[in-house]
Amino acid sequence: MAAEIVNPRSDSAPDGDDTHGEFFDPAFALHRGGKMEIRATVPVRDRDDLSLAYTPGVAKVCSAIAEHPELVHDYTWKSQVVAVVTDGSAVLGLGDIGAEASLPVMEGKAILFKQFGGVDAVPIALDCRGVDEIVETVARLAPSFGGINLEDISAPRCFEVERKLQERVDIPVFHDDQHGTAVVTLAALRNAARLTGRALGELRAVISGAGAAGVAIARILVEAGIGDVAVCDRKGIVSADREDLTAVKRDLAGFTNKAGLSGTLGAALDGADVFIGVSGGTVPEEAVATMAKDALIFAMANPNPEIHPDVAHKYAAVVATGRSDYPNQINNVLAFPGIFAGALQVRASRITEGMKLAAAEALAAVVADELSAECVIPSPFDERVAPAVTAAVAAAARAEGVARR
Amino acid sequence: MAAEIVNPRSDSAPDGDDTHGEFFDPAFALHRGGKMEIRATVPVRDRDDLSLAYTPGVAKVCSAIAEHPELVHDYTWKSQVVAVVTDGSAVLGLGDIGAEASLPVMEGKAILFKQFGGVDAVPIALDCRGVDEIVETVARLAPSFGGINLEDISAPRCFEVERKLQERVDIPVFHDDQHGTAVVTLAALRNAARLTGRALGELRAVISGAGAAGVAIARILVEAGIGDVAVCDRKGIVSADREDLTAVKRDLAGFTNKAGLSGTLGAALDGADVFIGVSGGTVPEEAVATMAKDALIFAMANPNPEIHPDVAHKYAAVVATGRSDYPNQINNVLAFPGIFAGALQVRASRITEGMKLAAAEALAAVVADELSAECVIPSPFDERVAPAVTAAVAAAARAEGVARR
Repeated sequence: MAAEIVNPRSDSAPDGDDTHGEFFDPAFALHRGGKMEIRATVPVRDRDDLSLAYTPGVAKVCSAIAEHPELVHDYTWKSQVVAVVTDGSAVLGLGDIGAEASLPVMEGKAILFKQFGGVDAVPIALDCRGVDEIVETVARLAPSFGGINLEDISAPRCFEVERKLQERVDIPVFHDDQHGTAVVTLAALRNAARLTGRALGELRAVISGAGAAGVAIARILVEAGIGDVAVCDRKGIVSADREDLTAVKRDLAGFTNKAGLSGTLGAALDGADVFIGVSGGTVPEEAVATMAKDALIFAMANPNPEIHPDVAHKYAAVVATGRSDYPNQINNVLAFPGIFAGALQVRASRITEGMKLAAAEALAAVVADELSAECVIPSPFDERVAPAVTAAVAAAARAEGVARR
Repeated sequence: MAAEIVNPRSDSAPDGDDTHGEFFDPAFALHRGGKMEIRATVPVRDRDDLSLAYTPGVAKVCSAIAEHPELVHDYTWKSQVVAVVTDGSAVLGLGDIGAEASLPVMEGKAILFKQFGGVDAVPIALDCRGVDEIVETVARLAPSFGGINLEDISAPRCFEVERKLQERVDIPVFHDDQHGTAVVTLAALRNAARLTGRALGELRAVISGAGAAGVAIARILVEAGIGDVAVCDRKGIVSADREDLTAVKRDLAGFTNKAGLSGTLGAALDGADVFIGVSGGTVPEEAVATMAKDALIFAMANPNPEIHPDVAHKYAAVVATGRSDYPNQINNVLAFPGIFAGALQVRASRITEGMKLAAAEALAAVVADELSAECVIPSPFDERVAPAVTAAVAAAARAEGVARR
């Protein structure tokens, strides 16, 4: 993507040769000065206000928390604020653009947290790359936050960062690129299966892409009881007989591909019921044509789906993409605001697999009564979504024993 | 200070034995749920809004910053947001209460930044104590912020943290307990000297307290050209002949106490023009009585000034305290919001001594026309303060060559 450059010293269009019209690009105009601010929720108008919100009144509150640490959740914003943490190594489709250049995405994520989940969120873009450095840094910040949303950290480091960090802190750690995508995908797949009269256990799925999203989708589908899953990377099906697998992919081979397939993506697709694309690239129509009747095709690469919807519709009963201009958009914003809102509401110490499954079920249920091939997942602007996910996640946290209230 | 405990599980007063009335304490009621929130400053109402504030529109902005890093200041909130960083080791008068218990103070500070300077601020309470750990952690966060306000970190670590951190990052690092206090003290002293017809160069000052505030006040007074300063710790006057001095106090002895005094605080006060208390404790009236005629007494300990204002007025032409219920309150909120607003406005890389001196001059000038013994410093609610300090600091940053626009 070519950078459209705007004069950093000018607040308005110059008189000169703005030949490309970038000064009038609405994305740059909207981003000027950033997209978020801090607001006080208490009055600070006069000495009386200050004497309660600051010294001397605040000292009583600090002392109470020092004596009874759990009070921090009642008397600070900790339990309603999430850190959106990145190292800028895998930002959108742009790749490794660094910490500062990732900030517009992190601010965007933060305002989505607020808009869709009522959760406050703060962008934290880190100037370090080592797994242990990231873990140590975020663990030291943890007293200030009620949860940690990891974002746009490249695989395979993202898996280790999430695991090690969750071992260190007693607040939820959630890598949205993995689990947000997985939850929304499972929700859509549940509804698509129901619509076509099949149980999850009957389905054989193929996932193209073994990065953050692919690995997490494979895991949640297996947990949800899907018949079988084969995951493909650039070299073909991830299978136990391959010698070139990373630790993460070896693990993946251990709980996927019960059929023992090997070979190319094309080989995996032959007779498969479900295609899930989180890879980019293009799947040839000949391969799509070999899928089972009434296939479910989720081609989620942005901006170019792995299988164009027009092609997919020739073979599939349900088609979903990552794009907002086609029906059935698989959009993480359907999951992460409610997942964190639910976890924070009950002060969960972590986000368990059961909480993610509950989120997917609740999300699927939102459109249960209006299910159609064009509607297996709600719109991001459906106001029923966040309350449903929040309630389901909070209940699951209690059921799983990770809630603290 | 005894902690007043409130039932963390109750949002309202219980039926039972609330014998101390803490459930109705207005400070606790005000703090419930914290004191701040995040707000979007751009619309997020529909797909069109999302496509600009988030994908795909945001990608252009990220790419532009990746290519031209200085654009981060234009298109994110970086240049208007400060991290309020503490380790919870020296919180108010409460001492070492830890990271989480310090959060109410950090939130209070954050909303003062916004209210008085229009600066966004985020509380970052760290779960680590080593100087190098704190420096390393904050340096890794620096891409996300336009400035770092260090707060309530105990001496002498605070001096080293500030110095080492400023060497690592290209955004301003400012330890408010030191420099905020120093700037406001100098402003008040300038006006008090003017009111009593004396030049700063004629004055001999005694500072009681050689912690964060005392050291910074000594430094700024010497830079501002005061005649002489003697700093006293619990063992008496900090002088080069003492064998028990820390590195910071040895340095202090090198640029203070030109008169070569040694002995107790009482010995230092004999004939002194100015008393500045930042220590707690009490100065006996007999010692106050030995000060020069028309003394200037700034007894700033909270809640109990080192010299009670009633006693001070017997000997002094001008009396200031740290309390809001007496005239001439030395309150940091007069300085830090405008200092950061000015530094951020010109994207200063650091806050120099010249910028602090300029802030003190501008602050003093606000009340130049209404100067009286009861008004040597403006009220925190005087709306002229922040704009005056902001403009002076921005101009000084340009003059000193640390401004980047």
